[in-house]
Amino acid sequence: MTGIPGVGKTTLLSKIVEIIKSHGKSVNVVSFGTMMFEIAKENGLKDRDELRKLSVTEQQNLQKIVAEKIAALNDQIVIIDTHAFINSPEGYYPGLPEHVLKIIKPTNFVSVSAKSEEIYNRRMKDDTRNRDKITLINIKKELEYQSGMISACVVITGSPVRHILNNEGKVDEAVDKVISSIGL
Amino acid sequence: MTGIPGVGKTTLLSKIVEIIKSHGKSVNVVSFGTMMFEIAKENGLKDRDELRKLSVTEQQNLQKIVAEKIAALNDQIVIIDTHAFINSPEGYYPGLPEHVLKIIKPTNFVSVSAKSEEIYNRRMKDDTRNRDKITLINIKKELEYQSGMISACVVITGSPVRHILNNEGKVDEAVDKVISSIGL
Amino acid sequence: MTGIPGVGKTTLLSKIVEIIKSHGKSVNVVSFGTMMFEIAKENGLKDRDELRKLSVTEQQNLQKIVAEKIAALNDQIVIIDTHAFINSPEGYYPGLPEHVLKIIKPTNFVSVSAKSEEIYNRRMKDDTRNRDKITLINIKKELEYQSGMISACVVITGSPVRHILNNEGKVDEAVDKVISSIGL
Repeated sequence: MTGIPGVGKTTLLSKIVEIIKSHGKSVNVVSFGTMMFEIAKENGLKDRDELRKLSVTEQQNLQKIVAEKIAALNDQIVIIDTHAFINSPEGYYPGLPEHVLKIIKPTNFVSVSAKSEEIYNRRMKDDTRNRDKITLINIKKELEYQSGMISACVVITGSPVRHILNNEGKVDEAVDKVISSIGL
Repeated sequence: MTGIPGVGKTTLLSKIVEIIKSHGKSVNVVSFGTMMFEIAKENGLKDRDELRKLSVTEQQNLQKIVAEKIAALNDQIVIIDTHAFINSPEGYYPGLPEHVLKIIKPTNFVSVSAKSEEIYNRRMKDDTRNRDKITLINIKKELEYQSGMISACVVITGSPVRHILNNEGKVDEAVDKVISSIGL
Repeated sequence: MTGIPGVGKTTLLSKIVEIIKSHGKSVNVVSFGTMMFEIAKENGLKDRDELRKLSVTEQQNLQKIVAEKIAALNDQIVIIDTHAFINSPEGYYPGLPEHVLKIIKPTNFVSVSAKSEEIYNRRMKDDTRNRDKITLINIKKELEYQSGMISACVVITGSPVRHILNNEGKVDEAVDKVISSIGL
């Protein structure tokens, strides 16, 4: 499951997990970024922001280790909480590059989106320090790249993507769509 | 040749075939979906809608068989009538995933598009049962994913895509563009 | 570095080279298209427009030779001046197809964009012969495919893309973003 910051992915995720459990299925939600940081900590990293400062090779190594851990999970349903890309000074880093996809072999993608105005409002409320950097034009650009990168993931893996428009006040509709996309 | 439902692909295709024949070339139009269903029928499937209910592995096997049949065709020009993606409850399934592209090795892509309002009107006329589900916002999203997935196909194969805007009342212009894209 | 014609890539590039040199780094700007034509000339080609008329196999061979030459360069920073796609009668040819990416292994992508109206005005001024073919709707479509193809490149390679909006009169801002994306 991917979604740029401000689309309301976290709320969506917790509701989805509840429903999957009510179907009697075992479910495991893993955050790709958190797992990367945990492994990096074992190698001496202290701050999550330092992740970005690693060389591309080091980052890809970390991604590979995380991907292998995820591929080894035994739960009936594994949800990967991640991003189509991570915004950094170098630009948009792919959250699910081909070398990771070949290891994890995801069966379904969910791409969470929202109206750019709603994303804007959520970011302005959440990230009061960086308000001046938040612009509608950038959010629209991020949504465009999210669709583009997920499209590439879909063509590479052959697995489908469910596009979810998470409209303010209509979380339950969005949750229903995700649940039906995994056949529950 | 790909195009979401309602862009007017069928009309376009029959005109293109006519012109190619008038150039004295042998041409074969194969529908990827129909071929998949025919092979599935030999294995006991009865209804085309059941195709979607097959497991991802079974679907990919079917796609592989169809791709190999297409790759073996001897006509001077083979046109594959397909979609960038198929809309299903699981989401957008790629019509031309990488494993299929590697077998077929298409030399040219044609991506048929139209104004979202015209697509909307055609769908409302054609699919009277599901009128309530047809929305402009979804059509725009589909057009965005069509471009995204075809872009991935182009980067993976190295072959060009001709983007065709099939405007109402200007079919002949669209036909001319397709014909010139294959060098006739 | 990619950008459709009219985004102001050339001006941007010369300023970037200046700044990289002022940091005491060796930098080499190579134009992918020019290198392709030079190698083709050694094989008898006379006009750059003939490049497009080569068969897909011949073009891919040329791309491969150029990619290998670029991969062998020893400069601290190599900037490839290219396009996400090349517009031709066959459609949009990928400037960086997968087989080229696997050889060059780019560490960073920069995708230069601009407001479609500004691109329109620059093209109308530069290409007075083909003014009637320049339309806003085509430019918007090209920008969409540029994002789509670069997204595919990013997912395939795992390297980040910095999206640069090169607004009229704000070149220095755009230059700063590129420079920071490569960590200088």
